[in-house]
This record gives sequence, C-alpha cells and structure tokens, in this order.
Amino acid sequence: MAENDKRSEQSRKVTFSIDKSQNFPDWYDRAIEVAKIVDARYPIKGMNAWMPYGFKALKLMLSKMEFLLDDTGHNEVYFPLMIPESVFSKEADFLRGFNGESFIVTQAGETELAERLYIRPTSETGMYDTVKLWIKSEADLPLKLYQTVNVFRHETKQTRPLMRVREIVKFKEAHTFHANAEDAAQQVDEAINVYKRFFDMMLLPYKVLRTPSWDTFPGAEYNYDFMSVIPDGKGIELASVINLGKKFSLAFGIQYQNSQNDYSYVYQTCYGISERTLGTIMAIHGDNNGLLLPPIIAPTQAIIVPIYYAGKEQPVNKACAEIRETLEKSNIRTSLDSRQNTAGEKFYEWEAKGVPIRIEVGPKDVENGSAVVVRRDTREKKPVKVEELSNHIRMTLDDISINMKKRADAYLKERILHFDTVEDVKKEYKERLGLVGLPWCGEERCGRSIEEKIGIPTIGYDEHKGAKGKCASCGNPGKTEMFFGRTY
Amino acid sequence: MAENDKRSEQSRKVTFSIDKSQNFPDWYDRAIEVAKIVDARYPIKGMNAWMPYGFKALKLMLSKMEFLLDDTGHNEVYFPLMIPESVFSKEADFLRGFNGESFIVTQAGETELAERLYIRPTSETGMYDTVKLWIKSEADLPLKLYQTVNVFRHETKQTRPLMRVREIVKFKEAHTFHANAEDAAQQVDEAINVYKRFFDMMLLPYKVLRTPSWDTFPGAEYNYDFMSVIPDGKGIELASVINLGKKFSLAFGIQYQNSQNDYSYVYQTCYGISERTLGTIMAIHGDNNGLLLPPIIAPTQAIIVPIYYAGKEQPVNKACAEIRETLEKSNIRTSLDSRQNTAGEKFYEWEAKGVPIRIEVGPKDVENGSAVVVRRDTREKKPVKVEELSNHIRMTLDDISINMKKRADAYLKERILHFDTVEDVKKEYKERLGLVGLPWCGEERCGRSIEEKIGIPTIGYDEHKGAKGKCASCGNPGKTEMFFGRTY
Repeated sequence: MAENDKRSEQSRKVTFSIDKSQNFPDWYDRAIEVAKIVDARYPIKGMNAWMPYGFKALKLMLSKMEFLLDDTGHNEVYFPLMIPESVFSKEADFLRGFNGESFIVTQAGETELAERLYIRPTSETGMYDTVKLWIKSEADLPLKLYQTVNVFRHETKQTRPLMRVREIVKFKEAHTFHANAEDAAQQVDEAINVYKRFFDMMLLPYKVLRTPSWDTFPGAEYNYDFMSVIPDGKGIELASVINLGKKFSLAFGIQYQNSQNDYSYVYQTCYGISERTLGTIMAIHGDNNGLLLPPIIAPTQAIIVPIYYAGKEQPVNKACAEIRETLEKSNIRTSLDSRQNTAGEKFYEWEAKGVPIRIEVGPKDVENGSAVVVRRDTREKKPVKVEELSNHIRMTLDDISINMKKRADAYLKERILHFDTVEDVKKEYKERLGLVGLPWCGEERCGRSIEEKIGIPTIGYDEHKGAKGKCASCGNPGKTEMFFGRTY
Repeated sequence: MAENDKRSEQSRKVTFSIDKSQNFPDWYDRAIEVAKIVDARYPIKGMNAWMPYGFKALKLMLSKMEFLLDDTGHNEVYFPLMIPESVFSKEADFLRGFNGESFIVTQAGETELAERLYIRPTSETGMYDTVKLWIKSEADLPLKLYQTVNVFRHETKQTRPLMRVREIVKFKEAHTFHANAEDAAQQVDEAINVYKRFFDMMLLPYKVLRTPSWDTFPGAEYNYDFMSVIPDGKGIELASVINLGKKFSLAFGIQYQNSQNDYSYVYQTCYGISERTLGTIMAIHGDNNGLLLPPIIAPTQAIIVPIYYAGKEQPVNKACAEIRETLEKSNIRTSLDSRQNTAGEKFYEWEAKGVPIRIEVGPKDVENGSAVVVRRDTREKKPVKVEELSNHIRMTLDDISINMKKRADAYLKERILHFDTVEDVKKEYKERLGLVGLPWCGEERCGRSIEEKIGIPTIGYDEHKGAKGKCASCGNPGKTEMFFGRTY
C-alpha cells in the first residue's frame, strides 16, 4: 500500500459519532469527554474534575488574562473562601441575589458552629470587609485588585461542564476602589477594553451589551455583559463589568480621607471571567472531529505522528525527535506521539483534542528531508522541508488563528437576527437560530412589555448603536437595539 | 549636611520595635503585618487575606515547585472542593484522622442537603474516587498528578499566619499511582529528592525524618516528614511524603488490568507542601529590621531609592529611571520608590519587606556615575559604577543566597541537640532551645516510653544515621537517632 493510501485509510477508521449541528448538547458533552478536558463523573452534580489536558488549556487561557490585568496595574490578592453570615448579609440587594444559591457550612466535625459560614458565591462581601482597612487616604486610590478563586453556586437548573456548574474553577475577578464616580466610570471602560483584548486573543466573537436597570447585578449601579451565542442558539454571558457605585462602600464603611480632611466613601467596580470562556471556545470552534483549540491556549500546538513501516522505524523515530527539538527551540509547544497505537488512532485522538497542527513523518518523508503538515482547521495537507518547518509552523499557527477568528465572527453575525416588530419575530424566529434584536425607545415599561410579548427575556442593549426604526412596543423612535434570547 | 550623614540620620528615624530573639511570636506577627504579607484581621480566625506583596512571594515560591513537579513528569489537575460524606468515609483510618476537624456543608440557601458535603481537609478521597476511572491497564501507570488547592481544617489550637491556619492557601499536593510496591517506594525517593531540591532553593534548613509507625498519616503505610525548627524552638513540618500502599486502592477499588489479564490494585503515594514553607522562610531569615526574603522568591529583588536634595531632583530621577530599565533588562525584579516619603521611611519599609538589595542614588552618585548598593543581609554598603551595576547586582544576589543558606544551616545545627540519656535531657534541655535527639533501639515500646519520660512527643527518626550509644529506654544498642520536640 502506498504511504498516502495507508494514512488516509487509517484516518478513516474512526469518526466522531455525533453531528454538532444536529445535536449540540450531546456533541459538547462528548467532545469534552473525548478530549479529556474535565471528568463529569465526579460524584457531585455540577462539580467536575479537571484532567491534565483541560487544566493546561485553562491555565494558558488564564495566563493571558493575568498578563492583561498586570499590564493595567492590577495586583493579585487572595481572600478566604468562607464568609461569616454577618458579613455576607451586610448589603441587602446582594444578600437577596445570592442567598438562595449559597452553600453554607454549619458545622466543623460534629460541632455546630456559632456562626454560619457562606462558601463564596462571589467575593464582594468577604473582600470589602477587610479592604476597608487598607484604604486610608486618597494616596491609596485607585486600588485595583484581582484574585483567582473558585466560586460556588447551588444551581438547580441543568448543569453543563464549563458553562453552568456548581463549582466555578479559577474565576478571575477584579475589584477596584476609586476616589470619585468619574474614576469608577473610567475603570469600567478600561475593564471593557481589557476584556475586548482578551476575547479577541481567545478568538471569540462577542457583543457588549448594557444590562437594563431592572436586571442589574445585585448591589450594582449598572453593568455590561460580554455576550456570545452557543451553537444551540442560546446566549452565554462570558464576562460582566459592573459599576457598583457606593452601594458596597456605604454598607461596609469603605472611606478615605480626602484633601480637605473629610471622609468620603469610595466608588467601586468589579468584573470577572470564568471557565465559561473555555467552554464557549470549545463550543464555537469545534466540529464533527472534536475540538479545535486556538493556538494561543492549545497545550500542544503541533503533534508529531510517526508513520511506521516495518523495518523503517529507526530513521523515522530519529527524524521525529529532531523535528521535536527544533520546534521546541522555536517555542512551539510540541508533542511526539510514539505510542504503539496505529497512526489512524492517533490522528483521531489529537484531532478530537483540537491540536491545531499535525506533523506526519513517514519513511518517504525522511528520504525527502520533509514532513507532511496537516492543518486542523482546513484539513489541508502540505509537505514541508524540514529546515523550513519552524517558520512554516509559526506562520501556519498565525494563519489558523486568523481563520478561526474570521469564522467565529461570521458565526456570531449569523446568530444575531435583527427584526422590526414583535410580529416579525413570532413569524420568523426559532429559538435555536440565536438572539433577536428589536428597536427600543429606552423605557423600562416597553422593554418589559416586549419581553413578555415574545416570551424571552432581554439580555441587554447595545449602547453605542442607535437603532433605526420604531420601538417594538410603543412605536416611538427607537433609541437603541435591545436583544432577547434564552441564555445559559 | 553631607549626603552620607543625611542618609544614616534618616535611616535611624524608625526602627523595628520587637526583638526577635526575646519575643519570637510577637516579632513574627508584627513582621508579617509590616511587610504586608497577609492581613490577619479577616473576620474568621485562622483564615487570612493575602495582600499583593505576600501573594507575589507565594506565587514565586510555588512556581519553583511547579517547575520541579513538571520536570519529573507530574501533570496538574484539579479536583472539587467538596466531597460527599459517603465518599469521604470510605477509608476508615482516614475518616478517623480528619473527621473531627472538617468543615461540613449541610445546606444550600435554606434547603437542607440530602447528603452532607465535606470541605476537603486533604484531597485523597475526593480524588481517588474519580481517578479509579482513569486507570485501566498497566499502560496508564505510573500516573503522577498534582494539584494546587486550598485545604481547610478547623484548628482548635492557637492559629498563626502561614504556620497554623484554618484555610491553607495553595497547598501543592501530588498523588501518584503505581503498578507495584517497588515503584511506589521509588516514587517516595523521587519525591524526597524533589523536596530537597526545593527547600535548598528556598534556602531552608531541614531534616528528613521517618515517622514512627504509631504516628503515621491516617491511611498510610509509612511517611517521611521534612522538619525544620522555628526560632522559638518548636519543630515545624514543612512537607510530608507518604507511602499509602494499597490502603486507598482497596477502599476505592483502584485496579488495573495486568499483562496476565488479571486485575491488581495499584500502589499509591502522596506528598505536599504548603504556605508553611514561606512562613518558615520568614521566621528563620528575618531579623530585627523585619523580613529577609531569598532572592529567588523576593517580589522585588532590588529597590531603587532616590535621595532627593532640593533643586537636584531632576538628574536623580533620570538616573534612577535608567538604572531601573537596565536592571529590568537583566531580568532583575526591580522597583523604583519615587514617593514623597523621606528616604529613611523608605529604607525602613523595604528592609521590613525583606528586599535583598537597596540601591541609593543621590546627586553626588549621579555626578560620579555610580550608585550605592546596600545588602539587606549584611547591611554592607558599596558604591558601584552604573555600567557595572547589572553584573554586580546579579552576583550580589547569588552571594546573598549563599550567605543566607549558610546561616540557616548553622541555625538549624544549633537547634538540634544530641543527648545520650533522658536524664541529660531533663538536666540541660529547655524547650526553646530546639529539638532533642536520643539513641533508640527501634522498638515502639521504647520510643513511647522515652516520649513519656521526657514529656515531649517524637517527631520521627533519622533513618540513614546510625546512632552511637545505647537506646535511651532499654539500654540496648541504639539503631538510630530519634527526635523529640514540641511542634507547630
């Protein structure tokens, strides 16, 4: 059998058995399982064990966010997991928002605790009660902190790995403290920019929407959400940027001495991203062969697969080891799969794991001083001279990133549908198609009325885009476009 | 006033007010507070908020351990915080060992949970219940995993930041799975070597002791502890390396299919280090001016302090900025303190934070094209030409490390006292002097009897060192030296 025949025959032996476009939920669960991202069999619903490959991708992703936060003057801290009930309940709106879904420690061993301890569903209260001791004068402001912590919510809805979980692993949340409202508002803008840079790096498409007043984060003045859409048509909140105003500083007494020696309450913001980002990357970029990871977070960017023919293993192994060394020297994350499985099994496995580039090396290739480079995104195959390999791989990784981003942007564009009236929505819209935009006059009454009529909740409005047309509720000129959809 | 006079006068303005040798506990609490390592005012006893400077040092320390674990083929994973009671109680010795000090979640919001959830006091049970699904055949072994997680123990003894806490932050624990007992024993040796390399890097002195059979980790076959001594004379366990044998694999059913197609139970080990390492570094290396951090983990390795004279700020600032840039290019972690405080206040603050090198730049220095380099360990001052600064700082950092390690080894040597008989101990030993070694025949009966007679528990024996003399209990030839002391 000719070398090429053997390769394609082997690669056809196994296929990824669920069609993503037909059955996204099962495809997603299966893709995560096959790629060994997390193990959902951990014996508590919605709490998953992170496997080595998934955890590496998560850490690579988070390291980029750390870079962006450090780069903009944030300092990393860590605040305890448990929050005394008396502290947790200091801000009333917040308490109402999170009380019902918090895990609560009531005992240690067989001893009943004197005070119940909340397992953080989010960190505001535990942090602010201590940070108030760190702020004395205006010289201490702005104070920009972040931490990477797990947060816990007793979800009662159906859970899904990385998207809706009870233990959110390595939630990266920033909390900032400012002397005045203008600085806090500017910080919100900075955060939005940081997140835009981040999601662009992650090759994710998103829309920044402002949450309407009747749906803000508990204890917030206003907030922005980074929304994307999952292939089943549901919206997903990737990040939230929140202007807390003085709500928490009043509740916790966070004050500074200003230049007139008076005490003023600080203004605060907070914002965070979670493992959902990774889940959404996998959901959007994967295909019927499994995952496709952006090169920037792929634990293995190039996988070398030797193609063995009896008696010719030696030169192939030697060439593979050399290629590996060369690529590693060029800072390309490279693995060499020299296990005993068939080449076809290896192709299947690494494709399912979303490794962007495969390098095949058979005896013929060795003779020619070349290797076959296969792109995961286009499945294009190309023989490349060994001495050109580093450069070629580097450029191809860039090209894959660009191609993935382009695809993702087109994907989101298709899934945000613009309508003029509620009637049009009812006629033409099916839930799995994506999100719906309608002109809105800006009045709460109208927003709520549209939600009710089309039967799906609003997820926010596009502040910067004046809508053409007339408010889908009252018929007055539309000030903005409001979006609706089911969400995770 | 001459430049030099001004500097020394300023540096004398403030002093660190507690004598370490007279009052170690207060010195320690104060040193950590002044250096802003953690904030112990968080409203739950034994749970501390990590401040930016302390957290950076902790992360630098952990990154070295990660390097060593990655380098020896360990893979990072993450397992959930909560463990169902039914899983937690599968191994009986383990349950007995940790049951009493575990925090337990009994409700979510106002809903009583159907099963109580343990907040991990250590991760064995939660992890092993799922890892058993990852192991099928001998090809899956050895499996070497690690994770970095917070663990929680409801300490009833007095807590102390970083040494005895209720939330241990970023505990780095490894768990390994092997086909046979020999491989597991070899893994214990590898782990001991990894930890030796690590504690050597951290400039910490230690003794590796084997725990006697009547004091092993719950569920273990045997274990080794890395012990050091705190300046108040108490022993502190820095790390534990545990051979679990088949105790957990039998309890959890972790089996693999061997080459004969039979099922065999795996052999396991586990080992971990915690924030205690950082606490011990600070306890041993600090002095009456505050902390002294090993260069390898110092968030700032060199602090540049401009010495301002009215009208001459401009050239000083320029020179400082240039020096900073030069040092940063040489990968020296450098800060420039250009705040409005006096130079003396800055000296005090950065000394207390344990920054290994201070660089003073005054107008005279600028004229001479030099800067004054001050070592934190010896307080030696030296003018250095700007063009030689990078090299000089790099070499000085190395020299500081060597000097610190030498001091630390001498420190531990002084605090491990060797006696021949219980009577000698009673006559000459005071608790704050350190640990006590006595010859031991190896019999449990004798070990327990010595403990009882001198009134302090054993902390283990030095396996590799044959003791001269006779067992301090029975008078038979001593096989080894057994150590005793109060511990954290």
